[in-house]
Amino acid sequence: MVLWFFSDSDDADAWAQALRDELPDLVIDAGVDPREPAAVRWALVWRPPPGGLARLTALEAIFSLAAGVESLLADPTLPDVPVCRMVDPGLTATVADYAHLVVLRAHRDFPRFAQLQAERRWRQTTPRLAGEVTVAVLGLGELGGAVARRLADSGYQVRGWSRRPTAIDGVRTACGPDGLAACVRDADVVLGVLPATPATRDLFDAAFFAAMKPGATFANLGRGDQLVDTDLLAALDRGQVARAVLDVFRDEPLPSEHPFWGHPRVLVTPHVAGSTLPATGAPVVADNIRRARAGRPLRHVVDRERGY
Amino acid sequence: MVLWFFSDSDDADAWAQALRDELPDLVIDAGVDPREPAAVRWALVWRPPPGGLARLTALEAIFSLAAGVESLLADPTLPDVPVCRMVDPGLTATVADYAHLVVLRAHRDFPRFAQLQAERRWRQTTPRLAGEVTVAVLGLGELGGAVARRLADSGYQVRGWSRRPTAIDGVRTACGPDGLAACVRDADVVLGVLPATPATRDLFDAAFFAAMKPGATFANLGRGDQLVDTDLLAALDRGQVARAVLDVFRDEPLPSEHPFWGHPRVLVTPHVAGSTLPATGAPVVADNIRRARAGRPLRHVVDRERGY
Repeated sequence: MVLWFFSDSDDADAWAQALRDELPDLVIDAGVDPREPAAVRWALVWRPPPGGLARLTALEAIFSLAAGVESLLADPTLPDVPVCRMVDPGLTATVADYAHLVVLRAHRDFPRFAQLQAERRWRQTTPRLAGEVTVAVLGLGELGGAVARRLADSGYQVRGWSRRPTAIDGVRTACGPDGLAACVRDADVVLGVLPATPATRDLFDAAFFAAMKPGATFANLGRGDQLVDTDLLAALDRGQVARAVLDVFRDEPLPSEHPFWGHPRVLVTPHVAGSTLPATGAPVVADNIRRARAGRPLRHVVDRERGY
Repeated sequence: MVLWFFSDSDDADAWAQALRDELPDLVIDAGVDPREPAAVRWALVWRPPPGGLARLTALEAIFSLAAGVESLLADPTLPDVPVCRMVDPGLTATVADYAHLVVLRAHRDFPRFAQLQAERRWRQTTPRLAGEVTVAVLGLGELGGAVARRLADSGYQVRGWSRRPTAIDGVRTACGPDGLAACVRDADVVLGVLPATPATRDLFDAAFFAAMKPGATFANLGRGDQLVDTDLLAALDRGQVARAVLDVFRDEPLPSEHPFWGHPRVLVTPHVAGSTLPATGAPVVADNIRRARAGRPLRHVVDRERGY
């Protein structure tokens, strides 16, 4: 029972240890090239080399180390076995914390206070209650849904938008292309937590920013190809969007000459909103391996048509 | 039934409206000098002019607009009537939000990412779960207790310290002078939420910072005279304290020449962590006025010996 592990940004030793704690008989091969390709039954991967999975003739399932599987699905040689996206309670918690931080930071005017500090100016303002702040969460899947619930539980007025109708307690939801403008119209903070699919590519464009409430904050935690960079820069320059927080980019690492780095009203973070953690993610992968061994259906299987 | 309102930093009209919504027969005099001093039964004040309260010969109780009453108690002419500190659910919520923001900001390394952005450097780190972050909350009264509960509910490891023994679910508490060093020893973030009393003056000194875990973040939301400014600056310069967030100062507004303004690892906010809000504070004051009229004991009466 061999599992092939491949990632250039996850800790192979930590994952191997966490998986062995769950499945002591599992053999884990973390080589760039698996020693015995024909013996590999499972693959746990992030951006494997193109064609790397196609050589595994006995492969039964592919487990993504990331919630987003668009780079796996883009491989035309991907074997025809179930692909499971990562659903890790640790990943979900880290994304919800990041989103909560972005919302609190805007709610409590910290960027403005930093600017006033640079000018040595003392300007008091009355803090708002969370209930006076409206947040739109775009994407209500495993991660976006958790973000919306966290913010609603914290007292914010929360709007949610997703491709298909979704109900979340305490969140006013809308769906489909027509629902998007209505969802963001009165939001003080707009959080993108969408998967990368053909339907979300270039979604955050000039028309989208024009539909936002003037002076609001835009944050993208989803994928970089959803954002038309020049349209955001133009909206910031016009003041239509007051500030942006960006964690994902079309090219990562963000090239050093990109204007986002030096923009005074853009905060750049290096794709750290969420991370799959071995301690919390390995039990979820192990559960799926046990299911496969027992002939039971796998969980979190990706619909290749939809892309998530 | 006249109430005298005095504050140069609260909105008199908003308070008068909110109080009249509760007590339609209450006459509110918001003049610097009350028109009929002998008719004033209640005072709702923030930093009234010295001696201003002593002229109110029919005064039955003083309601502070702030949670901290040290400036009232410092007036040697203060009439011998009950002084009630402000306990406002809106104030408590705004302080808990501010504290949560300060903790999330440190937990998720936002100051470091801002520094990396200035250098156009992309450096990924694995986010920590809240349960891997330890926070010490100093002061477990109305506000500190709410902060400690919020952070414990959010998954942080929370330590609490107060003058007298205090129990809070999910919080490891200590008390008295001997408990302070043990409380902060392993904390990644230390939050001061203490009242201004003789016992807390100059509490945050060189010995205190030496007891903190090296590289932690210190935040003060209590009162400025608790902090020995030069000792904090020395601890920052040695790297003993990594960063500070300061909302309160010995002199407010913070003088423009003060070194905190220009320090790269200090965030200055202009005493905005919490604010008493008319919509949520007026019902609490009105409840006390109704109690007084009915001859029932007042709530939130200050112990003048203790100072809070």
